[in-house]
Amino acid sequence: MAGRQREISVSEFFLKNRHLLGFDTPAKALVTAVKEAVDNALDACEEAGILPEISVQVRDRYGKSRVIVEDNGPGIVESQIARIFGKLLYGSKFHKLSQSRGQQGMGISAAGMYGQLTAGKPLHIISRIKGDKLASEMYVSIDTAKNQPDIHRKKRLQWDRPHGTRVEMEMEGHYQKGPHSIEVYLKQTAIANPHLTITYQDPQGEQIRFARNTKKLPPRPTEIKPHPYGIELGRLIQMLNSTASRTLMRFLIDEFSCVGKKTALKIIELARKQSDRRLSDRSYPKHIAHAQATALHRAIKKTRILAPRTDCIVPIGEKSLLEGLHKELEADFYTVTTRPAAAYRGNPFQVEVGIAYGLPGEAAVEIDTSGHMRKKEAHEKGAAENLIAQKDEPVRLLRFANRVPLLYQQSSCAITKAVIQTNWRVYGLHQSKGALPIAPMAILVHVASVWVPYTSESKEAIEPYPEILKEIRLGLQQCARNLAHYLHHEMHLRQEYDRRTYIEKYLPHIGIALQEILTLSNDERDSTVKKLDNVLHKSRTTRKPEP
Amino acid sequence: MAGRQREISVSEFFLKNRHLLGFDTPAKALVTAVKEAVDNALDACEEAGILPEISVQVRDRYGKSRVIVEDNGPGIVESQIARIFGKLLYGSKFHKLSQSRGQQGMGISAAGMYGQLTAGKPLHIISRIKGDKLASEMYVSIDTAKNQPDIHRKKRLQWDRPHGTRVEMEMEGHYQKGPHSIEVYLKQTAIANPHLTITYQDPQGEQIRFARNTKKLPPRPTEIKPHPYGIELGRLIQMLNSTASRTLMRFLIDEFSCVGKKTALKIIELARKQSDRRLSDRSYPKHIAHAQATALHRAIKKTRILAPRTDCIVPIGEKSLLEGLHKELEADFYTVTTRPAAAYRGNPFQVEVGIAYGLPGEAAVEIDTSGHMRKKEAHEKGAAENLIAQKDEPVRLLRFANRVPLLYQQSSCAITKAVIQTNWRVYGLHQSKGALPIAPMAILVHVASVWVPYTSESKEAIEPYPEILKEIRLGLQQCARNLAHYLHHEMHLRQEYDRRTYIEKYLPHIGIALQEILTLSNDERDSTVKKLDNVLHKSRTTRKPEP
Repeated sequence: MAGRQREISVSEFFLKNRHLLGFDTPAKALVTAVKEAVDNALDACEEAGILPEISVQVRDRYGKSRVIVEDNGPGIVESQIARIFGKLLYGSKFHKLSQSRGQQGMGISAAGMYGQLTAGKPLHIISRIKGDKLASEMYVSIDTAKNQPDIHRKKRLQWDRPHGTRVEMEMEGHYQKGPHSIEVYLKQTAIANPHLTITYQDPQGEQIRFARNTKKLPPRPTEIKPHPYGIELGRLIQMLNSTASRTLMRFLIDEFSCVGKKTALKIIELARKQSDRRLSDRSYPKHIAHAQATALHRAIKKTRILAPRTDCIVPIGEKSLLEGLHKELEADFYTVTTRPAAAYRGNPFQVEVGIAYGLPGEAAVEIDTSGHMRKKEAHEKGAAENLIAQKDEPVRLLRFANRVPLLYQQSSCAITKAVIQTNWRVYGLHQSKGALPIAPMAILVHVASVWVPYTSESKEAIEPYPEILKEIRLGLQQCARNLAHYLHHEMHLRQEYDRRTYIEKYLPHIGIALQEILTLSNDERDSTVKKLDNVLHKSRTTRKPEP
Repeated sequence: MAGRQREISVSEFFLKNRHLLGFDTPAKALVTAVKEAVDNALDACEEAGILPEISVQVRDRYGKSRVIVEDNGPGIVESQIARIFGKLLYGSKFHKLSQSRGQQGMGISAAGMYGQLTAGKPLHIISRIKGDKLASEMYVSIDTAKNQPDIHRKKRLQWDRPHGTRVEMEMEGHYQKGPHSIEVYLKQTAIANPHLTITYQDPQGEQIRFARNTKKLPPRPTEIKPHPYGIELGRLIQMLNSTASRTLMRFLIDEFSCVGKKTALKIIELARKQSDRRLSDRSYPKHIAHAQATALHRAIKKTRILAPRTDCIVPIGEKSLLEGLHKELEADFYTVTTRPAAAYRGNPFQVEVGIAYGLPGEAAVEIDTSGHMRKKEAHEKGAAENLIAQKDEPVRLLRFANRVPLLYQQSSCAITKAVIQTNWRVYGLHQSKGALPIAPMAILVHVASVWVPYTSESKEAIEPYPEILKEIRLGLQQCARNLAHYLHHEMHLRQEYDRRTYIEKYLPHIGIALQEILTLSNDERDSTVKKLDNVLHKSRTTRKPEP
């Protein structure tokens, strides 16, 4: 049996388990491939401080799909191209704590691997760095047995873009419309990234353009060091062994965030009391034994340390989020909130919630400029139908993590769980136990973090850590309160409107009755009716609640 | 930016994403660690043809848990120990298509990595191969930056077992009772593995023993070659390039299952017609170009090929499954079914379903040997309470994949989806739309396959492939029909019982009335009542439905 034991390459593993990376059905694989390429393009542009302009093209040919994604990013150094596109677990984002869309170094190479598996074709990449005279062109596939890139062809060529990257892949894909379509993914991406312009050409050749509504790039997220509260014993031992710091004190200050001289001394003092051996601020980190490290670890947990710095998180922001919702979703009422930052396992994160409430197919009531009430016109509904639920349907969830829309695995996501846990009946909506509320509404939740704990490598759902659930619930409650206020006002208006129309319907009859009783002329009758109408109208106006 | 691009070791990746491997909370980590060690022990014993005897011990000490799992398996060659326990993605089961519990080569090393992270201690392994005079002892941890084992200590020692393996790990664990406890995992393991004896000692020192009820090992699963229908184009190209076969015909026959000379010729003939270039049974595989491979791939899909061989799957079997349910679950009615084997993406699989129906807290009616009816005694309920639902609760699911119980992520599992999709109202149970049925019942589903598509590396749920869903539904329907028959009979008996008790209650009064009317003596009255009782009893017996 011993002879059969073998190493398994990470590419082989994910090739066989490609559903873990989101490449299970041809329909899902197509959306995932677009998503991975667009996420990379956005990360690259923002990191280089460039306003992103991205074009996406999908073509169908003999049951195979061709995806082309092109960006105006900074381009990729030629020596890195092959490994970025032809090796799983290779990238710049895994080893740092900083908010970005990618974090694993797997997405785009996984898309390439899927293309290679189902169409037998390598990825085709063109990339040009600003200032370079020529672009680099490369055909790359993965040697899955070794998880190493195979370069098939490579040359330098003229390219009309001054800088940017273009990736073209062929794969078994199935193009579909609906809630899991490329359009919906792009539309949601546009909501969460108001600084992005994206053009999309679908297999029928139709073009959609999502234009930016701000030229301001989001602030660049800063990189942070780990917070002491999130460090496990084993990791602490590993860090002690590999640090460049020469004293325990410097180690604590340099390797962690939120630890200054005072806190470091407190920790060391507490650890010294607990361990039998000597431990001081000048101890040499590499010589600290297991028992002392354990004491140090306990001391960290017992010392009051500042909460993690949160300026490393870049939320979308209430203003941009509201604009994004207005731009892409047609509704009667919008409310958004950005929660203060919090932390799970030492990792800072921040939650944003938005609600768009409308009544598709049933116009709401509004008061016109002259103070009269009328029914709002029902607007024609386009793709928005996909994003706001009908009034007898469960609400639609728009889930985002680090500005990336999450389309699949809704039921296992922390966001869904938090929405279900919230008691929406309190706010005037229908809801069965353990289910989403029923309302003509979309709920948007964005979780931004230096490290998003996804439930799988395909990054489709967020692990329901208690701290994250709590923050989402608080955000939902805040928005729900605003919604309840609006719904109350709306209901009031609606009742008033019904009462008014009822009275208006019978006023002429009252007029005729009065005419008979008091023997009025037709003019007297009409003026009496008009006076009555005015009196009733005024009484309504004075009772009009504050909006 | 280029300078920051780095390779990510697979250990680092899973250390940071350890929730993907089932090591997220201390409670779950403890159960997962036990599970990984027991699964490995079972695989090893069965592969060597040894009746498994496994002992599991869990101890609590200062908030750290110590897990010790010992088996009577064949032992591990010393040169392999370090890599099996100290390297992720290393094992014998990934590269072959054969039914086994493990398939990734990650579980036990992941448990070790978690122990190392949270307790800072290496794994402690003792293993002895039959015939060896001494056992090997080793302390192993993982160098996560390289995904390579670190051996801390190593020696040969006397060990009282003639052969077997013992692994001891320390970790941050939280011991808990309930549906996600080690007891429940072991109890379910005993149901699906009637040839297994396992003793368990919990942190309070209490011992539980699950004894085998058969000495027959399940037949050893055979290894198979991939079925042509499950092969993607890219994989075909890769296989053509790496085959040792010297002709296309031999390649098709040797590398695939279900392809004989006739089928191979048909495929080649069809492919030749479709490709412009020449392709013959004697073509040299390594020289086949992309266009020809594409034609070959299409030809395979269009040729009628026998369904995958299914003797590679070893189900538990209806008899053993029924015995297992009887042994570990106390219920009033049992039914099981083993479906014929089927295939998804070319991988054979087989589904087994069992139902245990009881009425905890409400005894059923039975007919005793003398033909009289009585209420069955309500038995005292022990751990079975965890496995059969109360009558007003959703049914309990006992999910298994390759004889391993699945405890977590129930909602995303194919088994749960299939149970929800089945219309249980037809069979006389309550069920809300989109929910599990309500009944005092446990449903057991076992999916056995040469490759189980899990939804994550932690192997807690099965991906809902349509073919798998369909087979589970068919199995459920079969069992549900038997259940409906039983419930119908049960209902009949119950009505009869109610009628009888009603009559029996009033018979003495009828006797007294008759005595007064007919002026009977007390003896005459009693004998009349007795005759009446007999007549009524007979009428009931003749109407007694077939059980």
